[in-house]
Amino acid sequence: MTVHLVGAGPGDPGLLTRRAAELLATAEVVVYDRPSMGPILALASATDLRCVGKAGGRPALPQHEVNTMLIELARTGLEVVRLKAGDPFVVSRGGEEAMALAAAGVEFTVVPGVSAAVAAPALAGVPVMVRQVATTLTVIAGNDDPQHRQRVDWDAVARLGGTVVILTGRSALRRIAADLRAAGMPADTPVTAVSAASRPAQRRTTGTLAALPDLRLPPPVTFVIGETAGMDLVSEAREARGAHT
Amino acid sequence: MTVHLVGAGPGDPGLLTRRAAELLATAEVVVYDRPSMGPILALASATDLRCVGKAGGRPALPQHEVNTMLIELARTGLEVVRLKAGDPFVVSRGGEEAMALAAAGVEFTVVPGVSAAVAAPALAGVPVMVRQVATTLTVIAGNDDPQHRQRVDWDAVARLGGTVVILTGRSALRRIAADLRAAGMPADTPVTAVSAASRPAQRRTTGTLAALPDLRLPPPVTFVIGETAGMDLVSEAREARGAHT
Repeated sequence: MTVHLVGAGPGDPGLLTRRAAELLATAEVVVYDRPSMGPILALASATDLRCVGKAGGRPALPQHEVNTMLIELARTGLEVVRLKAGDPFVVSRGGEEAMALAAAGVEFTVVPGVSAAVAAPALAGVPVMVRQVATTLTVIAGNDDPQHRQRVDWDAVARLGGTVVILTGRSALRRIAADLRAAGMPADTPVTAVSAASRPAQRRTTGTLAALPDLRLPPPVTFVIGETAGMDLVSEAREARGAHT
Repeated sequence: MTVHLVGAGPGDPGLLTRRAAELLATAEVVVYDRPSMGPILALASATDLRCVGKAGGRPALPQHEVNTMLIELARTGLEVVRLKAGDPFVVSRGGEEAMALAAAGVEFTVVPGVSAAVAAPALAGVPVMVRQVATTLTVIAGNDDPQHRQRVDWDAVARLGGTVVILTGRSALRRIAADLRAAGMPADTPVTAVSAASRPAQRRTTGTLAALPDLRLPPPVTFVIGETAGMDLVSEAREARGAHT
């Protein structure tokens, strides 16, 4: 049958698409990555819910085994939802899974989702694109295995400017900040980090590029770099309201 | 009361978020841009639906008048949904509206949506980020009034590579293609154009950077440039399935 590569959005079940919710309600198997997806998995009717990401003390299933699992489930005749955090093709291995399914001749559909790359800044009051301030948005995957990853040209990133969003683990941050500064990005460029976007635990911290490696928040964290990252429209509205009343 | 800046997604009502659908069902006024949003507006309970974009022979309302309308509606005590195509902050003036609301002290929320910048390629079989192929995704607004817009450094865009997505009118394409080639991007770089993504009329055309200005499709069109734009996983799966059976 069919594998549906479904974007789960940033975490809040309200940011799931209607189509994603429909597919969760009818799928026979759901394959997912993160135990924190609980509130979204609650919308599934299937009892066969398989976590293939890191959970408890168990490491994540290697990518090629996930691909094989999806192909085999589909060939067994099952309707499968492959739930991916955010959007299946944005800083995600959904593309690799789609390529494996295509190569195996397994029918699949893609249901795009709300990526944390856009939602995390927005929910923290940062508009990533404002034509007078930033007409480009660059999303960068920073934390993957360098052996399987295209190198990022940080000089070009610094020169392009606009808004830069990095979804990465903390380990890469020191190097990324150093590369951007070496490429000429000013040390006082605003940086905002958003943790657990859209969830009850959401938190925002703001600083500068110089302090990027020291912005400490619990994962998952979305980092926003550029002039827009210095904006906080949510607080601004609150303060203006206070002044008006 | 509150203004909700709500992303409507690329057009298919199935790609609306659950939260957006809830807000449409309860809002007292809906302010929207495009007459083509009909299937999504059908989910609204309000009878006060205001189109502020270009419609029929009428030009779009100037941005500052839209801002004022939103502020005044909220001050009248109404619950307002401001529906934006895609995501409110991606190639959109939602950021300007949020800034105007914040400055006026009007309470607002943002409901992120599925941007065509990601959904259009995905639905046409193009995975915008695959770690072995493209670890950066650059989204560019190409068609806005140059007077109010930050200049895009096309040299940096060409040097960065990865996947480049441009949401623009046809008029800017010839110049953009020329700038990218002048910056050293190879003439045979794959380009895919997707029209009316997620709607029944969705169409895909593929070519090269050299032929970019000649890719003719009815608007709205999303242009994808880079190695990933040469992929078509949907057709590939179909062909492989044919070969397997």
